[in-house]
Amino acid sequence: MISTPLSEQPRIVLFGLRNAGKSSLMNNILKNYISIVADFPGTTTDPVTKSMELGKLGPVAFTDTAGLDDTGEIGTLRVKRTLDFLKVADIAILVTPVDKPPSEIEINFALEINSKNKPFVIALTFADKKPDEKKLKWASQFNSVKINNITCEGVEELKKLLISFSSQLEFEIPPLEGIVKENDFVVLVTPIDLAAPKGRLILPQVETIRDALDKDCGVLIVKERELKLFYDSLKIKPKIVITDSQAFSKVAADIPETQLLTSFSILFARKKGDLSLFVKGIKKLDSIKPNSKILILEACSHHQQADDIGTVKIPRLFRQMVQSNCEFEFARELPPEEKLKEFSFVIQCGGCMVTRRKILYRLQIFENYGIPSTNYGLFLAWANGLLPRAIEPFQYEYELYLSS
Amino acid sequence: MISTPLSEQPRIVLFGLRNAGKSSLMNNILKNYISIVADFPGTTTDPVTKSMELGKLGPVAFTDTAGLDDTGEIGTLRVKRTLDFLKVADIAILVTPVDKPPSEIEINFALEINSKNKPFVIALTFADKKPDEKKLKWASQFNSVKINNITCEGVEELKKLLISFSSQLEFEIPPLEGIVKENDFVVLVTPIDLAAPKGRLILPQVETIRDALDKDCGVLIVKERELKLFYDSLKIKPKIVITDSQAFSKVAADIPETQLLTSFSILFARKKGDLSLFVKGIKKLDSIKPNSKILILEACSHHQQADDIGTVKIPRLFRQMVQSNCEFEFARELPPEEKLKEFSFVIQCGGCMVTRRKILYRLQIFENYGIPSTNYGLFLAWANGLLPRAIEPFQYEYELYLSS
Repeated sequence: MISTPLSEQPRIVLFGLRNAGKSSLMNNILKNYISIVADFPGTTTDPVTKSMELGKLGPVAFTDTAGLDDTGEIGTLRVKRTLDFLKVADIAILVTPVDKPPSEIEINFALEINSKNKPFVIALTFADKKPDEKKLKWASQFNSVKINNITCEGVEELKKLLISFSSQLEFEIPPLEGIVKENDFVVLVTPIDLAAPKGRLILPQVETIRDALDKDCGVLIVKERELKLFYDSLKIKPKIVITDSQAFSKVAADIPETQLLTSFSILFARKKGDLSLFVKGIKKLDSIKPNSKILILEACSHHQQADDIGTVKIPRLFRQMVQSNCEFEFARELPPEEKLKEFSFVIQCGGCMVTRRKILYRLQIFENYGIPSTNYGLFLAWANGLLPRAIEPFQYEYELYLSS
Repeated sequence: MISTPLSEQPRIVLFGLRNAGKSSLMNNILKNYISIVADFPGTTTDPVTKSMELGKLGPVAFTDTAGLDDTGEIGTLRVKRTLDFLKVADIAILVTPVDKPPSEIEINFALEINSKNKPFVIALTFADKKPDEKKLKWASQFNSVKINNITCEGVEELKKLLISFSSQLEFEIPPLEGIVKENDFVVLVTPIDLAAPKGRLILPQVETIRDALDKDCGVLIVKERELKLFYDSLKIKPKIVITDSQAFSKVAADIPETQLLTSFSILFARKKGDLSLFVKGIKKLDSIKPNSKILILEACSHHQQADDIGTVKIPRLFRQMVQSNCEFEFARELPPEEKLKEFSFVIQCGGCMVTRRKILYRLQIFENYGIPSTNYGLFLAWANGLLPRAIEPFQYEYELYLSS
């Protein structure tokens, strides 16, 4: 059985009209992997989902859906359900017989998938029959593979194509990955800001709650003021306490010293970046020389960080705690090579609006030039005295930080 | 002290340039209410917030903000913070001296507030000085009141104007209102649907978590499978368990019979409608005669309910459980009077996209015509056997349901 939770496996969803050969294709893809196939229980309206290891994609979940042309009362519900799966699909396969012209539903559906910029392949089934010219012409706009479900011809080619999409898939680290296991208990401490919109939680909190539920954990959520009361009401010791970093010192004082404790900012530095690289960067701070140039780098041009963290707060803390005499430059795009070389240190934003891939790409470039770097979350955690305790849950980074 | 949590009080925020008289005006508004003024602790960047009873608005929170023209590093942060408060303001007061022409910042800010369709008034301070003609002309586009902060002239008029905005304010019932008190413990059971987008929770769950935190409660969140394990790990008895209605029977079996239990759908029927009216409606179901006309009424034209709850699921359940021989009509707008009279029963949608006011207005009309009504959530709760247990937390409605 595959132990990666379903929610973290890339989801490959098979769509198509009724009798296009979706189920046969799914069976053929999974055929030689029968021993590691895991069935996931779903409600009666859930399409069949099975997992297998697929090359460097690792464990992936295949979902077979109801026909896009299903009719009747129940059929209409099934089609709606199928369209829901388009939203969560990481890769979409549209299964369609090669010997029939594309239907209006198929044409529209292909446009819909394509508009979402998701990796997408058309599986042209019934490859033993005479191809329809219109179908071939239409399919040629997209990735396509001819499949014979009887002989399995084309199935390996399809798998290779799916694996080739790996570079297009997101591979963030879920907030609690590697920290908790099934039936662990997690405590989240979430101060509520007076200016926070009514009835909402901020996204890192929501993502962490959801990840805990996906990992079959229980989650206690409290404000920092009520933490001690409810922490003491538990018969079990939580696996970890995660707090908003602004409440870190109060939280640390209210729980036993043996309790694992970290901050949302650390979890999200890891999710969207490279925690060990960021910790290495922090350790280089004491060798920053006067008159160094420091690059503060954000990740997107359309999204201004709240409270001017990058333009005001970080430079101020840096001058106070690292080196009073430094020059700061703020940018949203990676500077050209010649320019980049001038910098002694880079502090990268959290990357909330971009992919982890984009951040890792940048970090690789800094490493190539031998420029140490860290991110907003780690820098602020360090400046506010959260280290090393907040990285104790991460054995490698913790030892790295303590090593001389 | 006012016991309504700050988050549920209408928020009236004073904006303006430095030295416009914001703090003096706030003090004058609060002057005679000193005994019931409550101070709320905030972080150092939080503007001053104080509460008072204001006529039929009930307890309201006044917030004084930093000058919109504040400068310097810290000043820029304060201005950003002030703009955050514009988002959460229920009513905005722009304070500006009557004797000076409107500045560009003020002109733009007034346009910004106005574009948000929030109740908005301009307080023209220094009413003892000679008015600037440009200021008067500009202010005449909006609601405005002349204020003399030395004599308090105009302050009562301003309060009356603020109270007159009450009909424009939303007054939903927060999910846990009247059910929990400070330091109570709440358990939420949230099945995770395979088709749910990664890393997200649905809005009713988020709103309920947030409401519990606002009410100084602790919240345990679990999936239905882990409920028993973690319920048994608590030293304290939860005040209430709230579950997604699809897991109701499993949840009911996993916790003691003495444990208060309800569903998100019941909480949100109350939040967005009139729970006792809906319960009364449910009790009328057994008197629906054959050939009755049933109106299924949604609340907005742009938002199709998921899974065709109104067009398919509810009519099917109704035919199975209430009266097999009925005629259903589906509408998104309230039918005209003559048409409306034909109906024997109305089932109103949850109203997630509209104000509670709009739903209550409709319910009032049904009552005027003597047409019993309920809503989607209550009807489904009843049809799925959740009643009466799920309304036990609501004493009045519970007794109403059990009465003959």
